[in-house]
Amino acid sequence: MSVQFIASKDNPKIKHLRALIQQAAYRKKQQQTVLEGTHLCLAWLEQHSHLHALYTTEHALTHADFEKIQQHYNGHIFVISEALYKELSTLGTSIACMAVIDIPRHQHAFDPQADTLILENIQDPGNVGTLLRSAAAAGIQQILTTTGSAALWSPRVLRAGMGAHFALQCYEHIALEVALAQFKIPVYVTSLEQAQSLYSLDLSRACVWILGNEGQGVSDYALAHAQAVTIPQPGGQESLNVAIAGSVCMFEMVRQRL
Amino acid sequence: MSVQFIASKDNPKIKHLRALIQQAAYRKKQQQTVLEGTHLCLAWLEQHSHLHALYTTEHALTHADFEKIQQHYNGHIFVISEALYKELSTLGTSIACMAVIDIPRHQHAFDPQADTLILENIQDPGNVGTLLRSAAAAGIQQILTTTGSAALWSPRVLRAGMGAHFALQCYEHIALEVALAQFKIPVYVTSLEQAQSLYSLDLSRACVWILGNEGQGVSDYALAHAQAVTIPQPGGQESLNVAIAGSVCMFEMVRQRL
Repeated sequence: MSVQFIASKDNPKIKHLRALIQQAAYRKKQQQTVLEGTHLCLAWLEQHSHLHALYTTEHALTHADFEKIQQHYNGHIFVISEALYKELSTLGTSIACMAVIDIPRHQHAFDPQADTLILENIQDPGNVGTLLRSAAAAGIQQILTTTGSAALWSPRVLRAGMGAHFALQCYEHIALEVALAQFKIPVYVTSLEQAQSLYSLDLSRACVWILGNEGQGVSDYALAHAQAVTIPQPGGQESLNVAIAGSVCMFEMVRQRL
Repeated sequence: MSVQFIASKDNPKIKHLRALIQQAAYRKKQQQTVLEGTHLCLAWLEQHSHLHALYTTEHALTHADFEKIQQHYNGHIFVISEALYKELSTLGTSIACMAVIDIPRHQHAFDPQADTLILENIQDPGNVGTLLRSAAAAGIQQILTTTGSAALWSPRVLRAGMGAHFALQCYEHIALEVALAQFKIPVYVTSLEQAQSLYSLDLSRACVWILGNEGQGVSDYALAHAQAVTIPQPGGQESLNVAIAGSVCMFEMVRQRL
């Protein structure tokens, strides 16, 4: 392990870090992102995954959580000032810790036989991250998102995902038409309209769940090419939050498979 | 209906509105809050509930959504400038609409026989609002929150609740010890520790759910005085988001009662 101090906020490494944090287009071009907080960095390292660089402050360097990170990491640690860290941080985490990583890429196309969650134009980073966390917990390991959805590897989605990303196979910028043509397993879409009850489905075999945009719901294409499912709501509310609706569906699947 | 223009941002009504939006202590002292957005205002009015005052902009006054509001409201409408509205608004809603209302108070103490959701120190306004929305959808009408929880009638919780507040009986600043002494129905608490599976419970009768703080979980007191329940997670994740965990529990109850 080597520790290096960086004083200038115009240092090329800091410029790179700042652009990765702030600019979605730069993340996409570089195919890199930033993990913020000791929890996420540790979750990443525990999978023996590679970090390009780790940034912290002098104060955090001696914190117990940070020492745990050092047990898994032998590379460079760059120490920056509290003021610079505060300027860069989007999360206000208590222990300064940021890591630059490559966004994982897959050698293979998605598996059309596996349990899958498809996010169609879900735009709120909190909803997307929460859904990834629920999917990982429910044992769904394959995530497909359309171009209109929040970028999976943005700092805010990573934060809400709490490390779930690292247990999942994520495929972004998927065209729904192309994806649905490949699945031969049942495809379900949550719908507010009168439809078959979630609780009447047989979910014992692999299946696909499509969840739609927070405001507009799912597309007509999804409704035309998947089986509409509704969650009974005795209280008669107009709709559930999309992350809630998706999680209720995924955990009904868990229940049936116990 | 009477329309009145207010130009000054130092107008006493505007000062009152601003303080209600920005200051939790002022909301508590006045026992009033602000509904923001046409959706929330309309949901409130459709229950024939009283507004003290409605604020909008000249531009929004002719919008179709705002006209719907006027069908339910005959009181004063105060028109303010776009700049002032923008300064006051916390939500960036597209159609300018804010209403000052009294925070509903209950004549009666809570019902110790009714299905109940207890939020113990849940601090994120989004989680609290989402849980209210899920509870209302699941047919749970009684909500108790401890002093450490996010204020139910804050603009951010109201936003996440999407109008669910108006269908619920909400009791804030409840001491858990006092509340639990009164319930004679089963009380469940979600726990990460090894505990009885949610899916092995008989939820056909009225019950109480306790959900705990996002970081610390539920208190030792809750764990000692309620039956611990765990949600099976085949993916082996460390925990679900609290709003997800609570909603999965409430909808398992819905499923069993269909």
